[in-house]
Amino acid sequence: MATATALSRPRTHGIVLDLIRAARTISRVELVEASGLTGATITNVVRELMDDGLIEEAGRAESTGGKPRTLLRLRARARFTIGVQLDRCSCTIVIIDLAGQLVARTAMGGAGLRSPRETLIAVADHLDALMDTADVQRSLVLGIGLVSQGPQDLTAGRLLTGNHMGAWHGYPLLDELEAITGLPVLLDNDATAAAIGEFWIGGVEPASTYGCIYMASGIGGGVVSRGGVYRGGTSNSVEIGHVSLDIDGELCECGNHGCLEHYAGPEAVIARATRVPGLSARLRLTGGDTDTLVDFTRIARAAVAGDAEPLRLLQESARYVAHAAIGLASLFDLDAVVLAGQSFATAGSIYADAMQTQLDRTGFARDVHPVQVLLSKSGADAAAIGGAVLVLRSELTPRDLRRPDGQSLRYTYPHSAGDLPITA
Amino acid sequence: MATATALSRPRTHGIVLDLIRAARTISRVELVEASGLTGATITNVVRELMDDGLIEEAGRAESTGGKPRTLLRLRARARFTIGVQLDRCSCTIVIIDLAGQLVARTAMGGAGLRSPRETLIAVADHLDALMDTADVQRSLVLGIGLVSQGPQDLTAGRLLTGNHMGAWHGYPLLDELEAITGLPVLLDNDATAAAIGEFWIGGVEPASTYGCIYMASGIGGGVVSRGGVYRGGTSNSVEIGHVSLDIDGELCECGNHGCLEHYAGPEAVIARATRVPGLSARLRLTGGDTDTLVDFTRIARAAVAGDAEPLRLLQESARYVAHAAIGLASLFDLDAVVLAGQSFATAGSIYADAMQTQLDRTGFARDVHPVQVLLSKSGADAAAIGGAVLVLRSELTPRDLRRPDGQSLRYTYPHSAGDLPITA
Repeated sequence: MATATALSRPRTHGIVLDLIRAARTISRVELVEASGLTGATITNVVRELMDDGLIEEAGRAESTGGKPRTLLRLRARARFTIGVQLDRCSCTIVIIDLAGQLVARTAMGGAGLRSPRETLIAVADHLDALMDTADVQRSLVLGIGLVSQGPQDLTAGRLLTGNHMGAWHGYPLLDELEAITGLPVLLDNDATAAAIGEFWIGGVEPASTYGCIYMASGIGGGVVSRGGVYRGGTSNSVEIGHVSLDIDGELCECGNHGCLEHYAGPEAVIARATRVPGLSARLRLTGGDTDTLVDFTRIARAAVAGDAEPLRLLQESARYVAHAAIGLASLFDLDAVVLAGQSFATAGSIYADAMQTQLDRTGFARDVHPVQVLLSKSGADAAAIGGAVLVLRSELTPRDLRRPDGQSLRYTYPHSAGDLPITA
Repeated sequence: MATATALSRPRTHGIVLDLIRAARTISRVELVEASGLTGATITNVVRELMDDGLIEEAGRAESTGGKPRTLLRLRARARFTIGVQLDRCSCTIVIIDLAGQLVARTAMGGAGLRSPRETLIAVADHLDALMDTADVQRSLVLGIGLVSQGPQDLTAGRLLTGNHMGAWHGYPLLDELEAITGLPVLLDNDATAAAIGEFWIGGVEPASTYGCIYMASGIGGGVVSRGGVYRGGTSNSVEIGHVSLDIDGELCECGNHGCLEHYAGPEAVIARATRVPGLSARLRLTGGDTDTLVDFTRIARAAVAGDAEPLRLLQESARYVAHAAIGLASLFDLDAVVLAGQSFATAGSIYADAMQTQLDRTGFARDVHPVQVLLSKSGADAAAIGGAVLVLRSELTPRDLRRPDGQSLRYTYPHSAGDLPITA
């Protein structure tokens, strides 16, 4: 992060800022206790953070004897971060403040509508308009968290997927968006972003180990354990959309058989809906390649309204998602599964109910511990908010951005000291 | 670890000892560079480790100018740890030294043969005899790493499984073995132990993220990323034996349908073998409940010798294991899958070949990176050696044995600062 807008880099500043954020208001003495840093260090760091305008005093606390303690709090609007979720069918842009609160949001057509360069220019235009509308000064924006589907090459800042997005495969996404916007860009997986975003906004217990199943036009996943993201070898972990539910099942375009996304994803549900006589016309489904989210939402709305046929289609989809969640829970030893993304936004409760019933029946829930199914607090915007949170989190807990092989990773990976794995 | 045999507890001692172990021989100056500790600290720690008899001088190194540097090395036989792998059909006991080298091994009947108490008394008897034979003084033994199948309650030191081992469910395994042997005992999952043992003995690249598929009488799994064990919520992660390969498949006793172990485990292979006319008699299969490993090994030997029918049975099993490995690799973003345990010891190459062929065909290998199938360097003893390594590793990288909820975990979990998750 080489811009003038970046926060102070020393790790102590990040730790103190994060403690203030989490506590909302906190005194210097409490910061000493919570951080393990000396009183002198806290005094210095607090002064520098106040000089930078990142924190401010917020009255005095009742003291247990002795003089009252001055409380400190974040100046939430001192800095902002941006999240961009790029799906094939839609693109969501959000701005959040230093406290992690949503400031503004907008949406535009997805990656499947235009060429990569046209899309990124449109993203930059929408972003400028959004900052203008929300009265957010560009100089106070720390960076952009761009999130999209996996697999990805985080080192090169490119997508490795060809699935419906051929022109994007290998396109220098990160470099281009940095060049067009003039802001530092971080690339990550949409489901991973949604997962860590949920932790940050308090949607899960801090000590929880949970999986996020993310459904927009496709299905992805992420796992967070006590605030640390599980990343594996190249951060292409938790590709739950291509886990097989029947190894002798239908061939998926990924080369595997019986994949979750192939059976249960929005496209599969829409395809089944079009085979039900009269249903397409009744629900006004277009069947267009980039209308997947629109069509799926129409089916979901009808299902929520009690329309029997759409409900049956979603319950069939939910049954597959439930079984994938069972596997995920027993492999990652999860306490909870969070459902996030546009395609859970309307009919999430239908999925959650069906999944909870299936999960409660498993040997894992019986022998080890229950697994709770939750709906994301961020709903359709979960991944975009998560992208913005990744930038914020990267700033608050900076670390040396190098991999164990010594290769520099610029502003990409690992984003935070809280990410897993950590070299022991 | 409250006994007199324990290593020095300060974290610096563990770090220095681990650096010396990894380097084989190393100078004080190199220790300063590698540890980031000051020269004065290294001088003190080295003196104390020498006073404790844990390290010794090992000649002088060529210097790049200046005076020659004195090299330090472990006194490998200064301390020992014990690994006990408790399977339903067999129990393996090993002793390793401070350098992680195998000193002695023995085996006895498994947990399915006798009551828990009788079994643990037999373990203690075999252990006494083994120490005697190998000339290992009891006072130099740091502790026992007891490893068995999951799920487990590591806090209570008990197994949560009822699978063929009813009397063991909830039995105070850890407390009893501590009481009978007078040695500190650590409980862990056998597959997890095999996985971290493989890292420790150099069977995988240090920066690798790999999964271990462990097959003794059942099938379990473990994942290690850059030396850190993935543990999830309660360390009951990676139960790959009960991942479904067909959600509408046969009912497994775990309550799930189409589980890997149900289709591909040794019992399933033996059951299929007994249905082939004349095969049981020809291979001298007993079909006895605690003869699973013996019977499976007979089938495996025949397959390796080129007997067509046993080979077909193992290839069928390997196909299921391969598909489970595909799911594991894409969920955990693995570079490698290591096959460990008694049931891979004879016919591991048949499994490895079939699995490599399947893995190479997947979208993950095509779009992200290849996944290599490896046979464990420890073979049949992998879990027992891993159990002993867990004790050693726990000593070398000690940490506060408390969970985030503040509950004390005695000598159990997490075993090491290298374990995941780590609170950020």
